Amino acid sequence: MIELVLGIDVGGTNTDFGLVDSDGKILARGHLDTRQYPTAGGFVAALAEGVGKLLQKDKRFQLKGVGAGVPNANPFTGIVEDPPNLPWKGKVALRELLTDQLKVPAEISNDANAAAMGELLYGAGGSKNFVVITLGTGIGAGIVADGVLLQGRDGLAGELGHVIAIPDGRLCNCGRKGCFERYASATGLKETMHELLARPGARSLLSGSDPRNLSSKHIFDAAASGDLLALEAFDYTARIIGKVLADVAAILSPATFYFLGGLANAGDILLKPAKSYFDQALLFIHRDKITFEISSLKDREAAILGSAALLWHKLEK
Amino acid sequence: MIELVLGIDVGGTNTDFGLVDSDGKILARGHLDTRQYPTAGGFVAALAEGVGKLLQKDKRFQLKGVGAGVPNANPFTGIVEDPPNLPWKGKVALRELLTDQLKVPAEISNDANAAAMGELLYGAGGSKNFVVITLGTGIGAGIVADGVLLQGRDGLAGELGHVIAIPDGRLCNCGRKGCFERYASATGLKETMHELLARPGARSLLSGSDPRNLSSKHIFDAAASGDLLALEAFDYTARIIGKVLADVAAILSPATFYFLGGLANAGDILLKPAKSYFDQALLFIHRDKITFEISSLKDREAAILGSAALLWHKLEK
Repeated sequence: MIELVLGIDVGGTNTDFGLVDSDGKILARGHLDTRQYPTAGGFVAALAEGVGKLLQKDKRFQLKGVGAGVPNANPFTGIVEDPPNLPWKGKVALRELLTDQLKVPAEISNDANAAAMGELLYGAGGSKNFVVITLGTGIGAGIVADGVLLQGRDGLAGELGHVIAIPDGRLCNCGRKGCFERYASATGLKETMHELLARPGARSLLSGSDPRNLSSKHIFDAAASGDLLALEAFDYTARIIGKVLADVAAILSPATFYFLGGLANAGDILLKPAKSYFDQALLFIHRDKITFEISSLKDREAAILGSAALLWHKLEK
Repeated sequence: MIELVLGIDVGGTNTDFGLVDSDGKILARGHLDTRQYPTAGGFVAALAEGVGKLLQKDKRFQLKGVGAGVPNANPFTGIVEDPPNLPWKGKVALRELLTDQLKVPAEISNDANAAAMGELLYGAGGSKNFVVITLGTGIGAGIVADGVLLQGRDGLAGELGHVIAIPDGRLCNCGRKGCFERYASATGLKETMHELLARPGARSLLSGSDPRNLSSKHIFDAAASGDLLALEAFDYTARIIGKVLADVAAILSPATFYFLGGLANAGDILLKPAKSYFDQALLFIHRDKITFEISSLKDREAAILGSAALLWHKLEK
C-alpha cells in the first residue's frame, strides 16, 4: 500500500488539492473553482468526489488523512470563521465536514501556518527557527520555533500583517491604522504606486493607467524596465518590510525569513533592498546572522505540501 | 535526602542565591555584593564558599545542580558576554566555572528567561502561553509558547526592549533610536519626567529637584500624591507599553503579560492605563482575551526560583 495524505489549499478563487506521500511527493492532484460553491457543504462534497477519482488511479493508494490550509482557519477549534475572501459566511466547522465526508482524520490551519509546516518538513534546509511570510493580497505568517509551529493561546499567533508599521497610517480592514499588510502586500504596493502617481509632475510608464486595472505585476514589469517611480514604490515597500522584520527578529531571533506569495515573486527587486533595510535596522546581536530567502517550495506546491504536512506531522508523532 | 537546586540571581549590585527544592520552596538563602568581585572566577569561588555553608545547615541537603539568571547570558553557549552592569569584562564561561566549582550540572540564562521559567513552574496559574516582562533599568522579556521557553536560533529571543517603539526616537545604548526600553524602563520614565519638567511653565512636586537624584520611586510618589506632571509621565509610558505589547500580541497570541521589576511595582498607576491603551490598540481577534498581571512570584524570589527552575526543568525531563 502507498499511504497518502490529502493536502488542500483553499483560496478565494482556486482550490488545489493533491495526494501527498510521506516523503512529500505529490502523486496526484486536482482542482476546484472555489466560487462555484456557495456553501462549505457543497464544496466538501465536490472535493470528496474529486478525491475519490484520484484514489482510483492506483489500487495501492490508501488515504490516511486530510490537511487543509484555509484563510481564517482555527486549528484548535477546526472552525473557519468569516473568511474574508471565501463565499462561505459565518462559522464553518470545516474539520468536521472533511472528516465526515472523507472518513479520515482531518486538520485545518491558516494558509501561512500550513506553508510553515511544509517548509519545516520538506524545505527549510534543516533550520528549526524561521518565519514563513506570505506576501499576497494580505500578509500572513507562520512561525516555527525550535521545530514547533508557534500557535499561541488560541491558534491565532503569527498575525504579522496586523503589526502596526506606520503609526496612524493607512486604514486597514481590521479597523485600525497603519497595519503592515496595508503596505507590504500586493494591495499595499498598488496603493503606494497610486500615491506616487498622484504626485504633481509624476512621470512613469504607468502614468494614465486606470488604477482599477493596475496590478502588482504591472508595477513589477515597470520597475524591471527601470521605471523610477515603480522602483520607488518597491523601495518604499522594502523599507517597511525591513523595519518591521527587524522588530520581529528582536522578539523571535529566527535564522531565516522565507517569503512566499505573489509579491515575493518580485524577487531581488523587493527582497534585496528589504534585506538591506533590515540589516540597517537590526539589533547588533543579530547582525549578519539572519537570512532572507524565497521559499524553497514552489508557490502552489507549498500550500498543498504544507496542508498535508499538518497531518503527516501528527501521524508521525 | 532532600534534593536541591541552587538558584542564583546575579545583578549588577546584589547577587541573591537560594537552595530550592522540587516544589519551588527556598530552604536556605544567601547574598553576595557583586561589585566586590572584579573577576568571575573570584565571584564563583566566593559563591561556592557561601553555598557550602548553606548545605551544612541540614545533613539531608543534597545539591543536584545550579541555575543562574544573569544579564546577557547565553543559554546555548553558557557564556556571559560583556554584561553592561557587571564588573566582569569580555566573554565569561560562567556555566563552566559554576560546574567546576560546585561539581554539579549548571544552566545559565538571562534574567528575564529565568523569570519566565519560574512563572511557568511555580506561578502562571497553569497558563502555557505568556510573556514575562521585566521593567527595570532596562527591559527584558521571557516568552513561553505552549509551555516551552522560546529561545530562537541562538538563545537570544525575547529582546523586547529593543523593539522600536518610537521611530527616530531617543538614542539607545544599542546604537539605534527609539527602542522600547528607552521609554518604558525605569530609566525611560525618568527621561520622560525630565522632558516634562523642562517644558516652559511646568509645575510639579518634582520641579527644581536635581535630575541626577531623581528616581522612578520619586516619580511614583509624586504621581500617587496626585502630581499631574508625574501622572502624565506614567500615562505617556503606559501608552507606549500598550502600543508595543499590542504588536507583540498579534505575533505571539499570548494569554497573559506578566510584569516584574522596579517599574512594575508602580502597579495600577502604570499598568491600568497601559492595559487600557493596549485594549484600544489590540487586533479585534484578541480583544478581551489577554490579561496584564503583576508576576505572582515576588521580585527577589522570582529570580532565585526562576534560575533554579532552569535546572529543575532539565532534571525532570
